Amino acid sequence: MSWQLFVQYDGGVYGVENLPVILVVEDDHLIQSVIEESLIDGRFEIVIASSGEDAVGLLDVSEGKYRAVVTDINFGRDKIDGWDVARRAREIDPDFPVVYMSGKDADHWASKGVPNSIMLAKPFAPAQLVTAVSQLLNTWTPPE
Amino acid sequence: MSWQLFVQYDGGVYGVENLPVILVVEDDHLIQSVIEESLIDGRFEIVIASSGEDAVGLLDVSEGKYRAVVTDINFGRDKIDGWDVARRAREIDPDFPVVYMSGKDADHWASKGVPNSIMLAKPFAPAQLVTAVSQLLNTWTPPE
Amino acid sequence: MSWQLFVQYDGGVYGVENLPVILVVEDDHLIQSVIEESLIDGRFEIVIASSGEDAVGLLDVSEGKYRAVVTDINFGRDKIDGWDVARRAREIDPDFPVVYMSGKDADHWASKGVPNSIMLAKPFAPAQLVTAVSQLLNTWTPPE
Amino acid sequence: MSWQLFVQYDGGVYGVENLPVILVVEDDHLIQSVIEESLIDGRFEIVIASSGEDAVGLLDVSEGKYRAVVTDINFGRDKIDGWDVARRAREIDPDFPVVYMSGKDADHWASKGVPNSIMLAKPFAPAQLVTAVSQLLNTWTPPE
Amino acid sequence: MSWQLFVQYDGGVYGVENLPVILVVEDDHLIQSVIEESLIDGRFEIVIASSGEDAVGLLDVSEGKYRAVVTDINFGRDKIDGWDVARRAREIDPDFPVVYMSGKDADHWASKGVPNSIMLAKPFAPAQLVTAVSQLLNTWTPPE
Amino acid sequence: MSWQLFVQYDGGVYGVENLPVILVVEDDHLIQSVIEESLIDGRFEIVIASSGEDAVGLLDVSEGKYRAVVTDINFGRDKIDGWDVARRAREIDPDFPVVYMSGKDADHWASKGVPNSIMLAKPFAPAQLVTAVSQLLNTWTPPE
Repeated sequence: MSWQLFVQYDGGVYGVENLPVILVVEDDHLIQSVIEESLIDGRFEIVIASSGEDAVGLLDVSEGKYRAVVTDINFGRDKIDGWDVARRAREIDPDFPVVYMSGKDADHWASKGVPNSIMLAKPFAPAQLVTAVSQLLNTWTPPE
Repeated sequence: MSWQLFVQYDGGVYGVENLPVILVVEDDHLIQSVIEESLIDGRFEIVIASSGEDAVGLLDVSEGKYRAVVTDINFGRDKIDGWDVARRAREIDPDFPVVYMSGKDADHWASKGVPNSIMLAKPFAPAQLVTAVSQLLNTWTPPE
Repeated sequence: MSWQLFVQYDGGVYGVENLPVILVVEDDHLIQSVIEESLIDGRFEIVIASSGEDAVGLLDVSEGKYRAVVTDINFGRDKIDGWDVARRAREIDPDFPVVYMSGKDADHWASKGVPNSIMLAKPFAPAQLVTAVSQLLNTWTPPE
Repeated sequence: MSWQLFVQYDGGVYGVENLPVILVVEDDHLIQSVIEESLIDGRFEIVIASSGEDAVGLLDVSEGKYRAVVTDINFGRDKIDGWDVARRAREIDPDFPVVYMSGKDADHWASKGVPNSIMLAKPFAPAQLVTAVSQLLNTWTPPE
Repeated sequence: MSWQLFVQYDGGVYGVENLPVILVVEDDHLIQSVIEESLIDGRFEIVIASSGEDAVGLLDVSEGKYRAVVTDINFGRDKIDGWDVARRAREIDPDFPVVYMSGKDADHWASKGVPNSIMLAKPFAPAQLVTAVSQLLNTWTPPE
Repeated sequence: MSWQLFVQYDGGVYGVENLPVILVVEDDHLIQSVIEESLIDGRFEIVIASSGEDAVGLLDVSEGKYRAVVTDINFGRDKIDGWDVARRAREIDPDFPVVYMSGKDADHWASKGVPNSIMLAKPFAPAQLVTAVSQLLNTWTPPE
C-alpha cells in the first residue's frame, strides 16, 4: 500500500485533514511551488498566504489551526513584513514555531527575529526547510 | 544506479543487513504501515512489535541490535505501555534513543517520559518522525 | 550597602518574600545544611522537606509557590522516592524545573528521571547545584 | 592572598581594567545596587545606564568595550525601552549577549526579544543573573 | 510542475547553480554514489573529492563556494585524513559545518573532532546524513 | 554552621576528599592563584600542573581522579600545549569535561579544540570559569 494512496483514499488517522498544517507566507509563485512541493513531500499540509496582511488575517482567526509559520521577509514597501508576521504569531501563541527564509535580509535576524526561530539563508536546499520545521515541531511543550 | 537497486542487489557496505535497525512498537496496522513507509523511505531498517510485551521481549535478547525505539503509548488495559518500554530500553542502554508517538497521552510526557527523548504529538508528519530518529542518532556518544 | 542588609531590612523588590523559592527534599541534616548554605548564598529562598511524603504534600497545596525542586533519591524502604516526587511536580506543572542529587542511584537517571531535568552525581560542588538551578530557571517559558 | 586585594593592588593580568565589562540598563537605584553587587561579586566590571537613551548612546560609541548587556524593559512612556536597546546592540554586533530582566513584561519576550537572549522573570535570584551572563559569554564564537 | 524539471529547466532562483554546495570527501566509489544520491535527493548540490589532498586543495581556492564538508576519515597511510580536512576547513572559516562519517574511527571523534561537528557512525541511514547537514546549516550565524 | 568549618572538620559526605577534583594546567603563578581562588570558592578541589607534560603525566595515572580539566594553551616553544592536553584527556575518557582559557589563541578553538568543550576568551570573569566547569559537569552521562 502506498502512502500516497493511503493519504488520498483512506483519509483516516493520517488523512489530509489530520496532518500538521503549516502557514507559508510568500509572494513569489515560483518559490511558493518549491516550498509547497518540499513540505508536501514531507507530508505536511500547507496553506499559502501571499502577503503579510493575509498571513496576519489568517493567524487572527486561526484558533490553533496552524502548527508553524514559514515566512519570507520582504513583501514590498509599506507592507507588513515577515518580522511582523512572526511577532503577531508569537503574541497569539508564545511557543509558535517560526522559520524565516531570506537572502539579503538574513543578516537582520539577530536583531529582528524572535527567540527560538530558525533563519534559512538563501540559497537553501528543500531538505533544510523540512528539517527546520520538523526540529521546531519536535521540541514538544505540553500545554499548561 | 538507483539506491533501491544498490540496497537490494549489492548488499555490501550499505546493504539491508547493515542499515540501522529501528524497533517500532505499534498495534494499529494502518499506522504501522505509515511509520514503516516513512522510515524505510529514509533508508532505516525496521522491526515491528505489536505490543509492549513483545517489545520488551525483543529488547531483552537484542544484544545491541536496535539503534532506537519508536513507540506508541497505550496498548490496552493492564498491558505494558510505551512508557514502560522506554524505561526498559534505558535500563539496558542508558543512551538508547527513544521517540514516543501519542495523541491524548502526549501531555504526560513531561512526567512519564525519559530524559533526552522526543514526543511526537499526533498529528505529526512522517518527515518529523524521520528527523526525530535522525536527530537522536546523530548525537553520537563514543562507547567507553 | 551590603546585599544582606538590603534583603533583611528593605524587604522591598528583592526582599525575602520575593526571592524564588526552591523546594529541597533531603532527609540527612548535614547535607540539608550544605544545600541550604549554597542556595542561600546564591540568594534563593528555600523550604526543606525531610521526606518524599512531605514534599508531595507541600507540592499539592503549593499553588505555584515553588519555582524548582531539588531532591535526593532514596528516603528508605516503602517510602516515596525522589523519582516519584519529580513526577508529581511535573503532573502539577509540566515545565517544573527538577534537579536530582544522588550517589549510587545516579545511574538510573536515564530510565527513571523526567525529561529536561539535571542529575547531580555525588560528589558535586555547591557551585554545581547553584548553576543547575539557575540554568533551569533561566530557560524562561512564557505561560500560555 | 585574597582575590579582592589581588584585583585592587596587583592590577595586572586580571586587574579591573581587564575584566569583562557589562552594560547594565536600569533606572531604579535600589535594583541597580543589587545587580551591581551580584555582578561585581562574580568579578565582572559594570557600567550603568539609567535610561534606554543613555544605553544606546553608550553602545553607539563603545567600539567593542561591552561584552554583554543586561537590561530592564520599561523606562517610562515614550522612552526607548529594553527591547529597543537589545535590537540596537545586535545591529552593532549580531552575536552580542543580551539578558532581559522583567516582571510583567516577561510574557512579551517570545514576541519582542531577540534570538539567543535570556529573560530573567522577576523575582530572580542574583545567582541566576551571574549564571545567565556567564552562559552567554561562554558560548564563544571566534571573530571571522 | 515537478521540482526536478524546475531545477533542470528553469534554473532560476533555485536552479542548480544556486543550491547550497556540499564538499564530499570519500574515496570509495560505491559509498560516493550512496552519499551523492542522498544529498541530491535533499536538493543539495555536491562536489566530490577522492582524497584529503584534493579536498584541502579545493577548500584553499574555494572563496566561500562550499557551505559544508562531509568527510570520511581514513584515506590510507601517510595521507591527509578527514580530521585534517576538517581542521583546514575551520582555519578558513571558524563556523564551517563539518560532518564526519566513520566506522572504526568514530570512537576517536571525542579527541580528534572539531567543536560543533557531527559524527555519523556507520552504519547510518541516508536520512541521517541529510538531517545532519541540514541541522548544521540551519544554525545560521550572521557574518560580522 | 559555616560551610568552611563543615568541610574542614566533619570531613564526611562533603569532606575535602569527596569534592570533585579539577585539574588546572597553568604556568603563571598569578593566574594560578586567581583560578584557584575562584574554583575553591565554588567548593571544587583543585590540583595544579605547571606544564602540559606534568598534566599528561597526571592524567595517565589518574584512574578517574579528575572530573574536569581547565587548561591554558601556550606553555612555550616545543612544549606540549593545551590542545594536546585536552586530546590526551579525551583519549582516556571520551566524555571528559574540557575548559580552555586563552587570549590570542582563542581564535583557534574552532579548528584545534575538542567537541563539547568551552573556550574562555581572556579577559573572563571568575564567575564564567565556575559556570563553565559546572555546566559541563551537570550534563551527566551514566557510565555504560
